[in-house]
Amino acid sequence: MSAHLVIRNARVVTCDPARGGLGILDRGAVAITGGEVTWVGPEAERPGATREVDAGGRLVTPGLVDCHTHAIFAGDRANEFAMRAAGKTYLEIAAAGGGIGATLGPTRAASDDELLALLAGRLATAIAAGTTTIEVKSGYDLTVAGELRLLRVIARAQQRGAPRIVPTLLAHLVPPERRADRSAYVAEICDQLVPQVAADRLAASVDIYCDEGAYTLAETRAILGAAKAAGLPVRGHVGQFADLGAAELLADLAGLSADHLEQISDGGIARLAAAGVVGVMLPGAAVQLRLPVPPVDKLRAAGVALAIATDLNPGSSYAEELPLQMWLATTHFGMTVEEAWLGVTRHAAKALGLPKVGTIQAGGPADLVVWSVDDPAAVPYRYGSAARLIDTVYAGGVCQRGTA
Amino acid sequence: MSAHLVIRNARVVTCDPARGGLGILDRGAVAITGGEVTWVGPEAERPGATREVDAGGRLVTPGLVDCHTHAIFAGDRANEFAMRAAGKTYLEIAAAGGGIGATLGPTRAASDDELLALLAGRLATAIAAGTTTIEVKSGYDLTVAGELRLLRVIARAQQRGAPRIVPTLLAHLVPPERRADRSAYVAEICDQLVPQVAADRLAASVDIYCDEGAYTLAETRAILGAAKAAGLPVRGHVGQFADLGAAELLADLAGLSADHLEQISDGGIARLAAAGVVGVMLPGAAVQLRLPVPPVDKLRAAGVALAIATDLNPGSSYAEELPLQMWLATTHFGMTVEEAWLGVTRHAAKALGLPKVGTIQAGGPADLVVWSVDDPAAVPYRYGSAARLIDTVYAGGVCQRGTA
Repeated sequence: MSAHLVIRNARVVTCDPARGGLGILDRGAVAITGGEVTWVGPEAERPGATREVDAGGRLVTPGLVDCHTHAIFAGDRANEFAMRAAGKTYLEIAAAGGGIGATLGPTRAASDDELLALLAGRLATAIAAGTTTIEVKSGYDLTVAGELRLLRVIARAQQRGAPRIVPTLLAHLVPPERRADRSAYVAEICDQLVPQVAADRLAASVDIYCDEGAYTLAETRAILGAAKAAGLPVRGHVGQFADLGAAELLADLAGLSADHLEQISDGGIARLAAAGVVGVMLPGAAVQLRLPVPPVDKLRAAGVALAIATDLNPGSSYAEELPLQMWLATTHFGMTVEEAWLGVTRHAAKALGLPKVGTIQAGGPADLVVWSVDDPAAVPYRYGSAARLIDTVYAGGVCQRGTA
Repeated sequence: MSAHLVIRNARVVTCDPARGGLGILDRGAVAITGGEVTWVGPEAERPGATREVDAGGRLVTPGLVDCHTHAIFAGDRANEFAMRAAGKTYLEIAAAGGGIGATLGPTRAASDDELLALLAGRLATAIAAGTTTIEVKSGYDLTVAGELRLLRVIARAQQRGAPRIVPTLLAHLVPPERRADRSAYVAEICDQLVPQVAADRLAASVDIYCDEGAYTLAETRAILGAAKAAGLPVRGHVGQFADLGAAELLADLAGLSADHLEQISDGGIARLAAAGVVGVMLPGAAVQLRLPVPPVDKLRAAGVALAIATDLNPGSSYAEELPLQMWLATTHFGMTVEEAWLGVTRHAAKALGLPKVGTIQAGGPADLVVWSVDDPAAVPYRYGSAARLIDTVYAGGVCQRGTA
């Protein structure tokens, strides 16, 4: 049986765990039929195909996986950015109406169609930079009805095809108008929002921001417990500013990922490693907020699988492109080139609970990037505009841009 | 007399020193005729025009000025990047054949046409990101004949129009094959290369890399002295790794700029300020090499005008886009949004000795960027792909890309 398409003469970065490391095949080929990779191997052994594309010896990698974004929001916070650059403190910015709360108003006021258009624009930038799978969190409405609305708009975006969207319900923080009845609000999230999201299959997991100024560890335990009770996997924003013990909780709950990790104890690291929780590095947000670098050496030594994401959001990282985060990860965070690639492919897919995504292997999705360079290091190395490094992006076997 | 083109309904960021700060005109207009700005002011008072463009209230800024690049080279050093990411030291990388020397072979081996094509590709990326004036240094051949060849290829690129190229002769370091007769090599630079470059008008200034592993202060004095004797302005790579006293020397020589400045004494800062030498910040290279942040607060307090550049080069910063450097400058380096804008416009032009460039004023060049955003902070804030923020780039009044 011949394939629909074979990409030949490629340096295939399979990221297949069975091959070890990045699993690179020189003079390799990839066969695609009906949205799936059907065969990967040496090009001399390739199957027949309706159509062949010559990659010219350049890289073919899995489509990139952005496992942590807040890509659905209206408005922006450029004014806060300017205040921070001018030396204002977090408290001064908050006093001027800044912070997550500043995005609630514009997002609540935007229509579904407006939110969809804003999200679609960000997705288009992401896919042009190689992203074929993207997680999108709710979290900028914070009422029960409003969070459901955001997830339904995300579901509409999912219907439009590439990139693959993985929706997440995010318990971002207690909104200003509910601070007086904080425990009643948390009960609403546990008893109404989470079960409804699970019943309507609106999210693949539940995430929570457990940190100073956001949710306490006890609240986190309640909300993630409700998620588990509803059959939803959990993850968390952990230790961006302070280590409240959420890493240990996520390990207890067999969480998918613990994200940020600027502040984490050795014990917390050991627990993440033992439980197989992915650590998600968000270097752009760390640079923008001038946070300390997470303990990458310790995380690596403990065996925590590390992913890298954009953290696309209007407060600390208004950026859609993963290759730039790979540069920040390999320079500012001290990760290796191999870690950077696994961080935006297989490990990111693991953080989303998606087997085979983020790899090139038979039976996996035909999400591929054909690059214009032949060295995996060249992608983070030539930082900035990712588009100049990309020839073609295939999502589910469908060509998204470029010449092929 | 009517203008050829008027851009109206614009938020004009003039960067005109007569207006103070960024010199922003809301509901402003810019008139262009024959490659020049002929008028700037409130749109209600605009002159007649053959053609009007409505900027929709969005930003119109000077075309960006990249005042420090090594954009002419062949080969790449992705392998070094991977080694550094894997924790190898500078000495280990040098022992493996890395460093500036690794770019000499491919550059010397490349034909003029190959070098021109490589340079042109980088210039195209730069202009798509808003750069209309770019400095390009020689420095990857290091023989007298070879450096003259690089400058002649740069001159060919200049003939092709936008962006405006400002060529610089760079005394990068003593090449490996001349380390045994170092003083004779320096004498060749002083007595043969510099006078020839001046006679053939191949460079607008002479730059030198004065640092550990590059030129000593005494050699720097000799080479920059030869430049002044030949009538060429001078600038320097100063204190990237060690403060050898080059800032004081540049102040003595009324230098155009002192670049890098990770290591600089309070006395050096005071001398730069008194002499009006521009300090050029190169945050991408600092992040990539994990260098300390330059003393921005002290430089600001002393009154040193600060520019920001890409340092585009194959070793420490393979990046063409200035807006990303603005993000790094405003986050990692702690500069303000106003400083970031002046750093890639008027102050960068000052570092190149170009009056009126980097501003929008009558009699200046019609180098303009029409952005798709209306807040100057939005440009560094929405970091990553600059193209998604740009509507149109005009260089010498000629539209380079976009819809207008």
